[in-house]
Amino acid sequence: MSHEAGNLDELRGILGNALAIKAFRDGTLPFPYGATIAKLTWKHVPSVGDDAALGSMRAFVPGAATAVQIMVKDSKKYAATGGWGFGRFIGGKPVDEAQHATCFPCRQANAKGHDFAFTRYAP
Amino acid sequence: MSHEAGNLDELRGILGNALAIKAFRDGTLPFPYGATIAKLTWKHVPSVGDDAALGSMRAFVPGAATAVQIMVKDSKKYAATGGWGFGRFIGGKPVDEAQHATCFPCRQANAKGHDFAFTRYAP
Repeated sequence: MSHEAGNLDELRGILGNALAIKAFRDGTLPFPYGATIAKLTWKHVPSVGDDAALGSMRAFVPGAATAVQIMVKDSKKYAATGGWGFGRFIGGKPVDEAQHATCFPCRQANAKGHDFAFTRYAP
Repeated sequence: MSHEAGNLDELRGILGNALAIKAFRDGTLPFPYGATIAKLTWKHVPSVGDDAALGSMRAFVPGAATAVQIMVKDSKKYAATGGWGFGRFIGGKPVDEAQHATCFPCRQANAKGHDFAFTRYAP
């Protein structure tokens, strides 16, 4: 999971299939063929019940779902983008090609040392 | 998942066994016998890699693990505490009885209308 406190103001859950989780746990890089990582995002909203119990506004929970993002490893099929195929869906529909085309360059600039995956394993 | 921005400054993942997740999805209250909810907490720390990509400090990920908390439904065994048995573990060891004894009264005061579970299902 993670939290983005900027414009997006999101809580995020990051899921992996068995291949991805094993690679995260073992520290295996690059990720193997078939590894799949999904990021589910929701608005970061106050938890009214928790705040009442805590006596101040400081507890936050997921609000409305905002996006689903997926990356799938196939070094042959996606050779041009670091071996990863990327998808981003809003309201169940894929984003446009211009937005889609930003996935790899951002990762190439910022996450090259971790096989283009921003997510790290939190034990 | 959730985020506590107060003294604890934590990111939290809430997990349920199949019985608990089905009850959350169906909106079934009270939770059935055997329903088990676990909360895993970590420090809320900046993500250096993400912040470099984003250009400002606004992305946060789990840091050191802080606690594991569990609640298990058994209305007979735990009749005195709303049908729930509570556990809180820090560094793999249960907390003392004084701390343990706070679990139910807080929930009784603040989460009685949701069968003493603070967590709500985020679809």
